[in-house]
Parts: sequence; C-alpha cells; structure tokens
Amino acid sequence: MDLESVRDSLIRQEDTIVFSLIERAKFPINSWAYSPPQNGVDAFSASSFLHSFVRESETLHAKAGRYENPEENPFFPDDLPPSMVPTHDYKQVLHPAGSSINVNKTIWDIYLNKLLPLFAAEGDDGNYGLTAACDLACLQAISRRIHYGKFVAEVKFKESPEEYGPAIHDQDRAGLMKMLTFEAVEEMVKKRVEKKATVFGQEVNLSDNSKSKETYKVDPSVVSRLYEEWVMPLTKQVQVEYLLRRLD
Amino acid sequence: MDLESVRDSLIRQEDTIVFSLIERAKFPINSWAYSPPQNGVDAFSASSFLHSFVRESETLHAKAGRYENPEENPFFPDDLPPSMVPTHDYKQVLHPAGSSINVNKTIWDIYLNKLLPLFAAEGDDGNYGLTAACDLACLQAISRRIHYGKFVAEVKFKESPEEYGPAIHDQDRAGLMKMLTFEAVEEMVKKRVEKKATVFGQEVNLSDNSKSKETYKVDPSVVSRLYEEWVMPLTKQVQVEYLLRRLD
Repeated sequence: MDLESVRDSLIRQEDTIVFSLIERAKFPINSWAYSPPQNGVDAFSASSFLHSFVRESETLHAKAGRYENPEENPFFPDDLPPSMVPTHDYKQVLHPAGSSINVNKTIWDIYLNKLLPLFAAEGDDGNYGLTAACDLACLQAISRRIHYGKFVAEVKFKESPEEYGPAIHDQDRAGLMKMLTFEAVEEMVKKRVEKKATVFGQEVNLSDNSKSKETYKVDPSVVSRLYEEWVMPLTKQVQVEYLLRRLD
Repeated sequence: MDLESVRDSLIRQEDTIVFSLIERAKFPINSWAYSPPQNGVDAFSASSFLHSFVRESETLHAKAGRYENPEENPFFPDDLPPSMVPTHDYKQVLHPAGSSINVNKTIWDIYLNKLLPLFAAEGDDGNYGLTAACDLACLQAISRRIHYGKFVAEVKFKESPEEYGPAIHDQDRAGLMKMLTFEAVEEMVKKRVEKKATVFGQEVNLSDNSKSKETYKVDPSVVSRLYEEWVMPLTKQVQVEYLLRRLD
C-alpha cells in the first residue's frame, strides 16, 4: 500500500458514492422511515425503522465477515456476531489503535439531517424497505470513504515520520490538521465529484443529446457540497485522530 | 400507468443494472461464496454462502415490506415473514395471476454460471460478505427488470385487447412471442445499454481524456450480451406467461 494505491481507491470510491446517491434519488424522502416508532411497528422497536434496518443488516453482514476487513466500520458496533466465513488474512496495515476510531454517529446524523433533504424529493411512496436498502448503500459508501482516512494517514506517516512525529508527540491537533490540508487538491476533488455526478447522473441516449444532459438524477452541486462540507473535513478528522494515536 | 411510463422505468432500470455490475466488478470472482458448504461454515448451512446471504437478506427485506411492492419478486419466496411496516396502497395494476410468475431460479442460474464469469476477474480476495452484498444488488436489479415484463404485458394488453385475445384463448405461446418481438427495438436497447456501460464505467478525470476512456470497469459488450441473451428473452417469457393467464 502506497500513496498511489490509496489515491486510486479514494477515486474509485467516489464512483460508488455517486452511484448510491443516484439510486437513492429514485425514491422520495419517505420520512416515516426516519421517525421514532409508533404503534404497530413492534418488530422495529429501535429509534427508527432505518435504525433497525441498518442494525439487522449489519448483524447479517458481520456474520458474512464484512467487518473483518479493516476498511469497513459498522454503524452499530455493539453486540455484532462473529464472522462465520473462512478467515482472510487482511494485511495489517494500520496501527492497532486505528480500530477504535469510528465517526459513524456523525455520518449518520449528517446523512439523515443534512444530505438527504438536499437531494431526495419530497413525498412518500411507501417503499420504505427499498428506500432503507438504498440508504444503507449510501451510508456504507460514505463511511468507507471517510474512514479510509486511516489508511491515508498511515501511508503519509510512513512516508515521512520525521514530519509528523513532533506534532504527534505534542498531540497538536491544529498542527496536524494544517499539515493534512491541501486546498488545491480539495478543490480538484470537489470539481471531479461534481463532474462524476453529471456523467453518471445524465440521461444516456443513443442520439447525441447535449440538451437533455442539462438535468441530472442528483444535483451535481450537492455532491460537490457533500465532499466540501462533510466527506473531506471528516476524512481529515479521522486522519488526525489516527495520527494522534500512531505512536502509542 | 401507460406505455410511456413503463418505458421510462425500463430505461431507468438499465442504469441500476449497469451500476450494480460495475460495483460487483470491484471484487474478483471469489468462488468460495458459491460453493457447497464445507466444515466450519455451519451458520450458512444452505447450498452455498450466497444462497444463505440472499435468503437472510430477503427475510429482512420482507419484514421491511419490500415484497408488498408488486415490482419485487423474491428469490426464495417460501417462508418469508410478513411485512412489519405500514401498508402502502400499491395500485393493483396487474391481473392477480401475475403474482404466480417468478423466473428467479433461471435468473440465479444465469447470473452465477454465465454472467459472473464474463465480467468478474479471477481470484479470491476473501471479501465474501462484500461480494455477496454486490451480488444481491445485481440479482435484485436484473430480477426487477425481467419481472417488469408483467407490467409491459398488462399495458400492451390494455391498449389492444382485441389483438392479444385470440392468441390468449388459443394459449398460443409462439404466436404471443411473435407479437411481443420487435427486433429494431431490441437492437436499440442493446446499443443503449452498451453505451451506458461506456459512460458509467469510464474513468472520469477533469482533463478531457479521450484515451483513458478506452478501458471500462465492465466490458460494454458483456452488458449488451446480458440484454440480448438473457434480459430481453426472459422479459418476453414473463410477458407471454402473464398474457397466457390474463383472461383467467
């Protein structure tokens, strides 16, 4: 694992995030799925239908070995069952302290309360199960991307430990954040994900249809904003948290 | 529901299918997930890991109301639990006999034995759970598209019952198949899904990179072949089966 392969993975994950948002946009907001439970929904007795759906999905995915992969971080890590599939020898790239970093509570809150209202149409078509499956895909894609900051930080640290060492010793969050911020790169990433939303969210016809390309399944500026306001800041937060523990 | 809205849904579903194939192509074939169980995998005691993963996912999705939507058809319809979410009043567009038509066994077989080897790279990276989640998304997208033939047939029948009536009375499968076959349209659909695979499966850069567009995440000819050999023939088969029961 080097900076090049980390970069390739981050770029590939952009596609996954854009695809997942486009698929979620097929359904209206369907707010019932996010409301506290009411009478008659005993089977989903947690704080919302989506909460239960994601928790039960994660139980199944845990049995299927998903969280053996250090790139995957569950939203509800408590009481997950062990993996039932043959053990794969994932390369132990990360410092062991990395596994304690999980910002999924923040991601959940942002996804539901800030992102979703920006791109899901108003309304209720009753397709709560299909909607929740799409939400799960979005949440997992965004979570994987943000927590990939652990790998970014590890690779950067390995490349120049002398550069990060002093700030880590001083537990200097602000200093580390500054060292991890490259505004020109962030600007480029924002532009690229915006372009991806136009390419993947267009109506593809056999005729060359410059005009119909003007509407997209998800507003490209929303994807740019997702990266600017949430994905990149949280990735850097994960990187800082990781580096602060890197010499433990 | 008219021919126009049915057509729009079919076109939109093409995007979903292409996205799901591109996401599956991130992982190698991971054959273990499809093999009969061996010692030590007691928790997944069915005929394969994927079998168990899909069955357990469908159990959860059934509780979440997925199969209340007449567009959704489970792969393992036996013993599914009832929906636990508030009942949505889906328009009863289809003839009641339509619910008995389910070609998912055929779809499962084609997906695993014919399609997957055409686009998944050889190898095993141990990510069986992630792979199975992608397989589930592919299977559900292809299944929805093919079973949408029920709606296609209903709309066509409603538009000209006098045209289909005699062949239905005679239970004339070959005659119905002929009436439902439009080679020029099929050729156009093949070309369109192939184009979608090039657009959605390209490497999107900020620079105008005509050269790097030559490789795609899923070979576009495979998507064209998927439609030619399996999606369109099976959709027509579903249409014929539906029409044969339409006057019951």
